[in-house]
Amino acid sequence: MGKTYETLNIGDKDSFEKTLSESDVYLFSGITGDFNPAHINEKESMRTKFGGRIVHGMLTGSLISTVIGTKLPGTGTIYLQQDLQFVKAVRIGDTIRAEVEVVEKLEKGRVLLKTQCYNQHDELVVDGKALVLPPK
Amino acid sequence: MGKTYETLNIGDKDSFEKTLSESDVYLFSGITGDFNPAHINEKESMRTKFGGRIVHGMLTGSLISTVIGTKLPGTGTIYLQQDLQFVKAVRIGDTIRAEVEVVEKLEKGRVLLKTQCYNQHDELVVDGKALVLPPK
Repeated sequence: MGKTYETLNIGDKDSFEKTLSESDVYLFSGITGDFNPAHINEKESMRTKFGGRIVHGMLTGSLISTVIGTKLPGTGTIYLQQDLQFVKAVRIGDTIRAEVEVVEKLEKGRVLLKTQCYNQHDELVVDGKALVLPPK
Repeated sequence: MGKTYETLNIGDKDSFEKTLSESDVYLFSGITGDFNPAHINEKESMRTKFGGRIVHGMLTGSLISTVIGTKLPGTGTIYLQQDLQFVKAVRIGDTIRAEVEVVEKLEKGRVLLKTQCYNQHDELVVDGKALVLPPK
């Protein structure tokens, strides 16, 4: 089981890092139905300001859920809320590190987390926060 | 291209509906690294309050991105922000309808959207809002 409300401390941190591949993006399109050309059409996406295909913002953001559900607080955590700001485009092949930090212990056993994703250049690509109910 | 700031009207709505399968959940685990037993272990998840495996909240929430990126506003939209509240668990096999509605046209060409997901019983499972920059 993951860490409980009692054993979590302000400032506790954990992270998960993964290179997001073309196959990740294509499988994500198939799973979600999001076949936006920005993600799956190199020809069309070359004409955008991003100059090529970009990773779905929600795919990048989902790496946060990986940290929350498997590391901090971990197994048994109930995910109540996730706020995401998509700060910078993520390209296929970028290596993304999702970081989660305990910010505040709230009433009713809930915990506020700072949740951020960085690319291989340590640039912030997704900012945000989450509200969770750690396991009892 | 999708709808522009000028052609969008308050109250405009669109949606996308999909049955979330076991393979969707397993592929999502592989893509994101989120192998939380709640999603992939029937034996363990039977002991939780959900009584079986549940769909990743971020997978359900990602159907919202499908509507935004392919329907309303559609292609060319830049996704700035997404806030999600995970209201009710989604089970493997549930049919989820993601709904997006234009709520407010803001300064700098940005548009505020109400974003919600419902299951096959018309129960709200994900609530939230998004901020986007529609195509010019």
